[in-house]
Amino acid sequence: MSDKIYRVDMSNLTYKIEDVPSEWLGLGGRALTSTVVAAEVDPECHPLGPNNKMVFAPGLLSGTSAANSGRNSLGAKSPLTGGIKESNVGGTSAGIMAKLGVKALIIEGIPEDDSTFYHLHVTKEKVLIEAVPELVGKDNFAVLDAMMEKYNKKVAVMSIGRPGEQKMLISNISVKDPQGKLRSHGRGGLGAVMGSKKIKCITVDAEKYKETHIADPEKFKEASKIFTKALKENPISGEGLPAFGTNVLVNIINEAGALPSHNFRTGNSENAEDICGETMAENIKERGGNTTHGCHAGCVIQCSQTYNDKEGNYLASGFEYEMIWAFGANFGIKDLDQIAKIDHLMDDLGVDAIETGVTFGVAVDAGLIKFGDGVRAYEILANDVANGTPLGRIIGAGAGNLGKLYGLVRVPVVKNQSIPAYEPRAVKGQGITYVTTPMGADHTAGYAVATNILNSGGYIDPLKKDGQVELSRNLQIASAAVDSTGMCIFVAFPALDDPKCLPALIDMINARFGANLTGDDVTNLGKNILKIEHEFNLKAGLSAADDRIPEFMKYETLPPTGAIWDFTNEEIDEFWNF
Amino acid sequence: MSDKIYRVDMSNLTYKIEDVPSEWLGLGGRALTSTVVAAEVDPECHPLGPNNKMVFAPGLLSGTSAANSGRNSLGAKSPLTGGIKESNVGGTSAGIMAKLGVKALIIEGIPEDDSTFYHLHVTKEKVLIEAVPELVGKDNFAVLDAMMEKYNKKVAVMSIGRPGEQKMLISNISVKDPQGKLRSHGRGGLGAVMGSKKIKCITVDAEKYKETHIADPEKFKEASKIFTKALKENPISGEGLPAFGTNVLVNIINEAGALPSHNFRTGNSENAEDICGETMAENIKERGGNTTHGCHAGCVIQCSQTYNDKEGNYLASGFEYEMIWAFGANFGIKDLDQIAKIDHLMDDLGVDAIETGVTFGVAVDAGLIKFGDGVRAYEILANDVANGTPLGRIIGAGAGNLGKLYGLVRVPVVKNQSIPAYEPRAVKGQGITYVTTPMGADHTAGYAVATNILNSGGYIDPLKKDGQVELSRNLQIASAAVDSTGMCIFVAFPALDDPKCLPALIDMINARFGANLTGDDVTNLGKNILKIEHEFNLKAGLSAADDRIPEFMKYETLPPTGAIWDFTNEEIDEFWNF
Repeated sequence: MSDKIYRVDMSNLTYKIEDVPSEWLGLGGRALTSTVVAAEVDPECHPLGPNNKMVFAPGLLSGTSAANSGRNSLGAKSPLTGGIKESNVGGTSAGIMAKLGVKALIIEGIPEDDSTFYHLHVTKEKVLIEAVPELVGKDNFAVLDAMMEKYNKKVAVMSIGRPGEQKMLISNISVKDPQGKLRSHGRGGLGAVMGSKKIKCITVDAEKYKETHIADPEKFKEASKIFTKALKENPISGEGLPAFGTNVLVNIINEAGALPSHNFRTGNSENAEDICGETMAENIKERGGNTTHGCHAGCVIQCSQTYNDKEGNYLASGFEYEMIWAFGANFGIKDLDQIAKIDHLMDDLGVDAIETGVTFGVAVDAGLIKFGDGVRAYEILANDVANGTPLGRIIGAGAGNLGKLYGLVRVPVVKNQSIPAYEPRAVKGQGITYVTTPMGADHTAGYAVATNILNSGGYIDPLKKDGQVELSRNLQIASAAVDSTGMCIFVAFPALDDPKCLPALIDMINARFGANLTGDDVTNLGKNILKIEHEFNLKAGLSAADDRIPEFMKYETLPPTGAIWDFTNEEIDEFWNF
Repeated sequence: MSDKIYRVDMSNLTYKIEDVPSEWLGLGGRALTSTVVAAEVDPECHPLGPNNKMVFAPGLLSGTSAANSGRNSLGAKSPLTGGIKESNVGGTSAGIMAKLGVKALIIEGIPEDDSTFYHLHVTKEKVLIEAVPELVGKDNFAVLDAMMEKYNKKVAVMSIGRPGEQKMLISNISVKDPQGKLRSHGRGGLGAVMGSKKIKCITVDAEKYKETHIADPEKFKEASKIFTKALKENPISGEGLPAFGTNVLVNIINEAGALPSHNFRTGNSENAEDICGETMAENIKERGGNTTHGCHAGCVIQCSQTYNDKEGNYLASGFEYEMIWAFGANFGIKDLDQIAKIDHLMDDLGVDAIETGVTFGVAVDAGLIKFGDGVRAYEILANDVANGTPLGRIIGAGAGNLGKLYGLVRVPVVKNQSIPAYEPRAVKGQGITYVTTPMGADHTAGYAVATNILNSGGYIDPLKKDGQVELSRNLQIASAAVDSTGMCIFVAFPALDDPKCLPALIDMINARFGANLTGDDVTNLGKNILKIEHEFNLKAGLSAADDRIPEFMKYETLPPTGAIWDFTNEEIDEFWNF
């Protein structure tokens, strides 16, 4: 039985199960979400109004046994950036949706009666839509428990906490992972879109699903083996990430002078030693916990972990570099355990680690909190953000909006979205990605750190402008294609260095669908996605003037390298000439 | 002696007095401020950063005896809209600057040491720049008193209160009027720009000035007579405005179903009778006060007034329709005296009546305050806004930003600036002005109410689309030119209906400068100003998608007329085809 489009209209609480239009058949993940958003959403609509839509779509290889293929994409117009958004996530939702035959779940409209929230339960045959007043005001873990009790431990769960209910722009959408913990569609304030549609949680039936149909199982198996081997043999995806998690990056990026600290005032953190991956791995060894687990079934990189306190009690999982950087280096908390506590609270509330962490950095400049005061940051999240006090609304609106309220100039955002953990002045290829990606500042859109710092795919000097635009363009084209397969971004490392990796990935897609895609087809897919997204943004009111780094980085040098942002507008705008 | 450009660099606390470049010689007011901003300010700069500039420029006829010529223009990149801004004001600054020979005062840079605020005193020979720690934390009336004591009662004073110091986006710049009360450069958050430059107040010497040189005094006198007669004989500028002030509009606009009420939910207010101009005039008669005075020397319309409480004590002056509408109809305060108290407080704090009033309307939807609770609104302004509490920062950021913090969709702003007192759905020509003017929603940019409702310049049905784009375009071209003369916008009424009025205005300009401008020249000046401003905005990142009404007005009808915003994008964008 072929895949279907599941379409829910919240304005009248109805659903339809539709055939997949032929032009969408070859698309998955980001290719599909961006195509649907561009086709069906008025670029000028209010992102929290009735004319925005949410589009969930598993990747082309999701639901198969392909390693690291369990990413789910969510597309919408972002209330944070005002442009198109694709945010993908690990967890179990992609695999379950794909196996159930859900090509995409499209949610449109807003209920006329906005006095309660709803729960959508997607099964093969139908979508149940019911009011869940008992879940209103609950956070993610309570919702997760309620759903696992109502269905079974395997059910896929996507939910929002109180910040999402309140349509805060730092809110994300949480997704159950294989361990019953949470991953998130993190960026772009998509939790607010779900809140605007009055949806508290979405579950997808994990009982009636079947194995995904593979057109050529033998070919698939063979390609899959090569692909998995490439992942395991690569020094980053096969060694560094499993050993220390993504947090292996703290020392590396700090040494490069590119670890944004003190609200992007320096590229070094005095806390690096205390918060780095090596310290974290030691703590885990001493205290129990687990240095390696995967965020989704089939992951062979296993960069996630379980992190316990000194007494061996669980503190956090999915404790990522970006979180640790944001709260440890940029906001200045020295105590890794304190950061872990905040991480867990943020999982429960459902707020984006990068946006929230950068916001606290800017809040220091606003005089709202002292640098490094993790206790107060925890309180503000637990009390003010959760309950929507005026202070909570200010933090909950993200760094860009906080900056506007306090008249601040040093606000590290692009397209109103916070800049992640790599200083654009000191990793210039990454800076080009931040300013040009249609997503707003996003490190995953084209991870130039690979070639600027990690010597993956060659080497381009991070402090020089030469070659960075081309590097970022190539990476963004590749990433857009990878984001359509359901693959995790870390397949980029072997893909950049092992000539067998990408062909194996394409072979798997061909074997899955009985297709004959070439490398050029995949490149063209990536280009096409970027162009669709860029076009949407232009219609939505973004322009070349939004493809810019915050102005202060053009006149303020970054210690210790003394780096500055020195690209001309013309050099940046050259990005779109392809 | 010829006019000069006075240029202050706050980054090193220096000044220069420069000759006027030949291409600026024929410009004044808005024509000059927009030309200088476009020429010297990077459209992509942060409006509160070191690369924005403030440009004060009196109109071409300011400083002469021409009736109603005392408006001063201020230009900058707006931190509220992100685009170019010109905000003009009555009061005494235009006349004094013009007589002193100050063609423009340009202020650039930001002090490195931002620990205090500065006072600039402009004399014929120099600009004194001194720190005034004793004025920090004071509001406008205290600053005004200090300056009048330091100099003399005639000195021109421009100042900011605490909201401006805190770079709040509702903050404006106050200007001393002939009675020692305050008028304001109200819109676009320009008080925040002055705050960012750490300038608490600017004074202009009123002792050494001389009469403005007139090239052909006889011709000037003759033209001036005709012009004054036209103003006095027009039923609106000669009768309605003097009798009831601008507040004469409450009943007129309410009857048209176009008085935005309950945060733009209806076009009628249940409070109209209590807050209208007729009630106000009665109160003034009973209580003492004054129905007629002018906001600047030489005004023959005298639409301003002094409003007292029941005991005959002074409450407010310059008590305008927009203020009374915003707090009376849109936010719902029934008691005119309460509105007057808030008006006086807002003069003292230096915040824009329209932006602040609309923000309170949106704050009702956010659950921050109850509809019509003037006592609480006063408290929030006096305590929270003045002192910058989190709640104060939220209100102080304006309606658009408040809407973002609370995830609201019904937010009546264009280019992030609050829509004034005429419902765009029910006065469609005015709506076209709101969406197309480079200034953000601004009624003065092209006052289509004149022809849509007041039968001035003919009549075009306010509820129909036909002819509105052309009407608004013609009015905006004329207004841009008028804003360059130093004339008050109300000269539009006789200009639209009396064929002798505009030629007399042009004759005065020609007599003043020994020039030979024709009507076509003036039209071309207006067109050119609009194009310069539009071009700046496009470079700053605004686009056609910003020339739009809030989306909710496209699907929500407005009682009692049932009007809806039904212009297509193409119809709106046709505006710029000239």
